[in-house]
Amino acid sequence: MAVSDANLPIGVFDSGMGGLTVLAALRQHMPTEDFIYLGDTARLPYGTKSAATVGRYAVQAANVLVQRGVKALVVACNTASATALDLLAKEFAPLPVFGVVDPGAAAACAVTDASGVAVLATESTIAGGAYQRALLAQQPALRVLGRPCPLWVTLAEQANFASPLTNAILLDGVAGLVKTAGTPDAPSVLLLGCTHFPIFTAQLKQLLGEGVRVIDSALTTAAMVAAAMQAQNLVADHGGKAVFMATDGVQRFQTVGAVFMGEAIPDVELIDL
Amino acid sequence: MAVSDANLPIGVFDSGMGGLTVLAALRQHMPTEDFIYLGDTARLPYGTKSAATVGRYAVQAANVLVQRGVKALVVACNTASATALDLLAKEFAPLPVFGVVDPGAAAACAVTDASGVAVLATESTIAGGAYQRALLAQQPALRVLGRPCPLWVTLAEQANFASPLTNAILLDGVAGLVKTAGTPDAPSVLLLGCTHFPIFTAQLKQLLGEGVRVIDSALTTAAMVAAAMQAQNLVADHGGKAVFMATDGVQRFQTVGAVFMGEAIPDVELIDL
Repeated sequence: MAVSDANLPIGVFDSGMGGLTVLAALRQHMPTEDFIYLGDTARLPYGTKSAATVGRYAVQAANVLVQRGVKALVVACNTASATALDLLAKEFAPLPVFGVVDPGAAAACAVTDASGVAVLATESTIAGGAYQRALLAQQPALRVLGRPCPLWVTLAEQANFASPLTNAILLDGVAGLVKTAGTPDAPSVLLLGCTHFPIFTAQLKQLLGEGVRVIDSALTTAAMVAAAMQAQNLVADHGGKAVFMATDGVQRFQTVGAVFMGEAIPDVELIDL
Repeated sequence: MAVSDANLPIGVFDSGMGGLTVLAALRQHMPTEDFIYLGDTARLPYGTKSAATVGRYAVQAANVLVQRGVKALVVACNTASATALDLLAKEFAPLPVFGVVDPGAAAACAVTDASGVAVLATESTIAGGAYQRALLAQQPALRVLGRPCPLWVTLAEQANFASPLTNAILLDGVAGLVKTAGTPDAPSVLLLGCTHFPIFTAQLKQLLGEGVRVIDSALTTAAMVAAAMQAQNLVADHGGKAVFMATDGVQRFQTVGAVFMGEAIPDVELIDL
């Protein structure tokens, strides 16, 4: 495959629909690019599975995109980015492979002060420690706290923002973790380490006040991919289409996915992995 | 395979650890039986997946148990019971195959009054309507309400019973649905249509008061399987062992599973499906 074909689409995959927040950011940053998105909905969530299983699933998902012809791969899944990025880069070299962990960590480091960074993510992302390591690699003296927010994924898929229960679950997730919760030495930067969580950004800011910065990996990842495409002379000169594939539940993908994508999702192709 | 070998184990499978509430009930009812339990943890949850995918996964899981030699199959997963029981019975005939939906519905019908039954389950179990149909098949004039409680599965796996947030999420799930919530014509019977939910039984009773009956399919399923084994002359004369298999995350299976099982879980064999 000619990796150098600038008019090939960019392949994006996630365990499900959460990665559509990353796709939305990518499309916003790169309006002339085509994208193929694959959500491995039959096997979601990756966030409670072992590293070995996540690696196997990620290679299978990426392989579908590579077979269709892509000029780059974006791993829009925090769990897969955290555990399988090196494996994917090796497996599909020389194709450029981008994850969401390093960009998210870079964005958090850019705005943090001495109070440090609190990472909110799934159980396995926090337990695996990839965000914590990425933050410390970029800023070795940084104060880093990680907290799993397992309820937030399901909560995000319900998209019931106005419910008082949603506020309660969000506040519980950050209890004692942020400045505004009455803990003066708590981190002032909240790094959302799960693609589902950016849909709560506005609500978190409202709940926690102006003193807390909420960082969403999607935006920095998109900026980083755009810069890399430019650096490698791989910017498409026309395009802007996005096509969608899922491994299960096409209708649910469209309904729930539209919340993450911020716009309606047209046809979704059902594929088997 | 000689289905008539009474000393073969009973095979039990679930999408993950929730089915251990059913296994615990089975062991309590049938102390001389051996059991093999398979949790398809690599592909959980089944509750948000399509009927076709759930059917395929269920046949694969059941097949592992059948290959090892079992005298009966218990589908300890509500989603699989609701969508794939006929398929499994056909696929593995003449092996007796038991689900949890009909027993749960029977138990609810046995205690209901004119106010009817509220079914609490996963999105797909409620959307599929299997409990509603099973209840109406047994009692055609019954008043039946179904409500998805998607947050409860993750909540159960956290096992953080003392948290005020747990109470809030449980109360939100039954809001406006039960007598004690200030709705005098609401159902007085709560049918727990997800194997994860029985661990909340005591807490729900405490929150909702004595007026509400909480029905757990596991107990009736166990009684029904025990009766069928007796009727078919398949009661083991010695045994009492349980062995465990999972398709991913053996350590998490042991930790989280112990909550559902109500006792420590020894070795878990990792298998691939």
